[in-house]
Amino acid sequence: MKRGNPLSGRLRDLGEQGFIDHVKRRFGGPVRQGEIGIGDDGAVLPSPRGKVVLSTDLLVEGTHFDFRYFLPDELGWRALMANLSDLAAMGAVPVCYLVALAAPPDTPVKLLTGIFRGMARAGRPSGIRLVGGDTCRGERIVLSLTVMGKVSPGKVVPRRGARPGDLIFVTGEPGWSRLGLMLLSRRRPRNPAGWRLEAMRRHLTPVARWKEGIAAARTGSVSAMIDVSDGLLTDLSRLLEGGGMGAVLDEKSFRLSARFRKAAAELGADPVAAFLAGGEDYELLMSVRPHRYEAFRRAARSFPAGASPIGVVTNAPGIRVRRADGSWVAGERLPRGFSHFNPSGTPVAADGVRPTGRTGK
Amino acid sequence: MKRGNPLSGRLRDLGEQGFIDHVKRRFGGPVRQGEIGIGDDGAVLPSPRGKVVLSTDLLVEGTHFDFRYFLPDELGWRALMANLSDLAAMGAVPVCYLVALAAPPDTPVKLLTGIFRGMARAGRPSGIRLVGGDTCRGERIVLSLTVMGKVSPGKVVPRRGARPGDLIFVTGEPGWSRLGLMLLSRRRPRNPAGWRLEAMRRHLTPVARWKEGIAAARTGSVSAMIDVSDGLLTDLSRLLEGGGMGAVLDEKSFRLSARFRKAAAELGADPVAAFLAGGEDYELLMSVRPHRYEAFRRAARSFPAGASPIGVVTNAPGIRVRRADGSWVAGERLPRGFSHFNPSGTPVAADGVRPTGRTGK
Repeated sequence: MKRGNPLSGRLRDLGEQGFIDHVKRRFGGPVRQGEIGIGDDGAVLPSPRGKVVLSTDLLVEGTHFDFRYFLPDELGWRALMANLSDLAAMGAVPVCYLVALAAPPDTPVKLLTGIFRGMARAGRPSGIRLVGGDTCRGERIVLSLTVMGKVSPGKVVPRRGARPGDLIFVTGEPGWSRLGLMLLSRRRPRNPAGWRLEAMRRHLTPVARWKEGIAAARTGSVSAMIDVSDGLLTDLSRLLEGGGMGAVLDEKSFRLSARFRKAAAELGADPVAAFLAGGEDYELLMSVRPHRYEAFRRAARSFPAGASPIGVVTNAPGIRVRRADGSWVAGERLPRGFSHFNPSGTPVAADGVRPTGRTGK
Repeated sequence: MKRGNPLSGRLRDLGEQGFIDHVKRRFGGPVRQGEIGIGDDGAVLPSPRGKVVLSTDLLVEGTHFDFRYFLPDELGWRALMANLSDLAAMGAVPVCYLVALAAPPDTPVKLLTGIFRGMARAGRPSGIRLVGGDTCRGERIVLSLTVMGKVSPGKVVPRRGARPGDLIFVTGEPGWSRLGLMLLSRRRPRNPAGWRLEAMRRHLTPVARWKEGIAAARTGSVSAMIDVSDGLLTDLSRLLEGGGMGAVLDEKSFRLSARFRKAAAELGADPVAAFLAGGEDYELLMSVRPHRYEAFRRAARSFPAGASPIGVVTNAPGIRVRRADGSWVAGERLPRGFSHFNPSGTPVAADGVRPTGRTGK
């Protein structure tokens, strides 16, 4: 039973220690002087200067991902990106991550290697390093990531810090991931190109806006920031929570490219609903003090994904959207995002597709 | 459906945000100036001086715990203690923790509150604080904890640092947890006292040796340290790994109290096998340089759980145990611990009870 290369076999053939050694060898990377990496009771690293930022995420097979849609590499990529996105939303510089994994003993080692490879690839541009984790048996694959970042004391951007009159900016073009999910939930295209390729990529291998998050925090103009994981409107309402505030958004200012509109049209989706309610884009939503508007706008031009103004924070609760035809949409008539547990949070949005492929907040 | 106190209802009635708010209110504790706690994209804390220690653990219902044996408070207690034990094994001072939780929507909020209450109680003596986490839907309860600790640069104790000639010490009296599991897997006693109470406590609400770990690291005499989670012999072989080393243990030096022997006798277990192969005790196993032996022994008298010498590191691989009658036991004849995935790691140990209640390494 144990003949041949154990890496082409099942997890039970390799054993727990064998698997840890394999991950350490392939993905542990060089451990610096005075540090301890994978394989001890805990990872040891020099304390970052300033402040430590910690965030954790749990991904459960069946709830957050499904190997019918995801290749293992894509799952790993996405899982780490979701965590990098949390660091981005604090304006933090990525430092290291830990991976806790449960898997059935008959899981192919190749599948797990794919997950770790996807994480390693997603981490490379930011230099974030795998330093430890945990492995155990489970009936389904469960992946829990914890990331550590660092931030200068004056540059932390909280989720709640917006004030009435602040301008609302969003990076990139949220909604692509939802369009990608719609496409994939029909049937995975074989040789996608054009809008199909773009939509698939945005869903399967999104790029967290950690560069934008750090750059935005450094402008000193951002009063609050959150990543768009559950849909722009849902995450905007989280940003506004607690202060009795609301927002007015203007459709005319939404950055919806011709390609985005084409994708929505081909998929039979409302592009504005996808923009407002699609989740999992990992774009960043931020509020900017009004007197810093012009300066911030100039700074945002150098963000790799850009950032465009979409509305303003108001001192009356609720979000209202001014459509291009001049009509207003608010309250129950707004497209909705997706919230765990709460059945009233079931997405209606653009399509009626249940986002099985999402990663949770 | 939503009448009454939502905290007496199901998770789906409270919703994800409602649950996070509830945890924050009850268990979030005061957030210090310049910090960000539960409810943002990440937790923000001042960087500890010296080094950061990070460790993570994943607990899956059915694999690691079972509500037939565990009250929710006990599960929470044990989960945090397992993580504190990892910090202890590095000689680190506990700082903060994050909790990622998956649960079915019909989980009673009371059950989850119990888990968090158990963690809060387990954390109180060390002052470790809950600063963040993640919540999502899952078919079974999955709990992932991440702890952060701090350690002075010269005081880190790695797992691998033992050398031939080092003396092996263990804190407390490992084996109690296994005896507790044997007792509980028959039927939970109603009003336990004496050895029954002790065995139950040691299994259900063990105390991590974080005080001992910090004190041991401060002596400067400890060359390697690991916590006994999978059984003394299994964890000792991990400590010795890589250097072609082995160990000789002497039964006469094992600290086996009259109460421990009585418990083993009543349960029909071999006390030495329970001591050597029982897991989940969270005692600490450490190697001490021979010239520091006396100094360390004196220092260990002030450890709350004590620490006693049980043997010596040798330069020949393998562990041999000298029984009280002068006979030797080694290799296949040694009682074995429990390892995930590997079927040959199934415990034979003292009893034949499969440790369903264990928490993984």
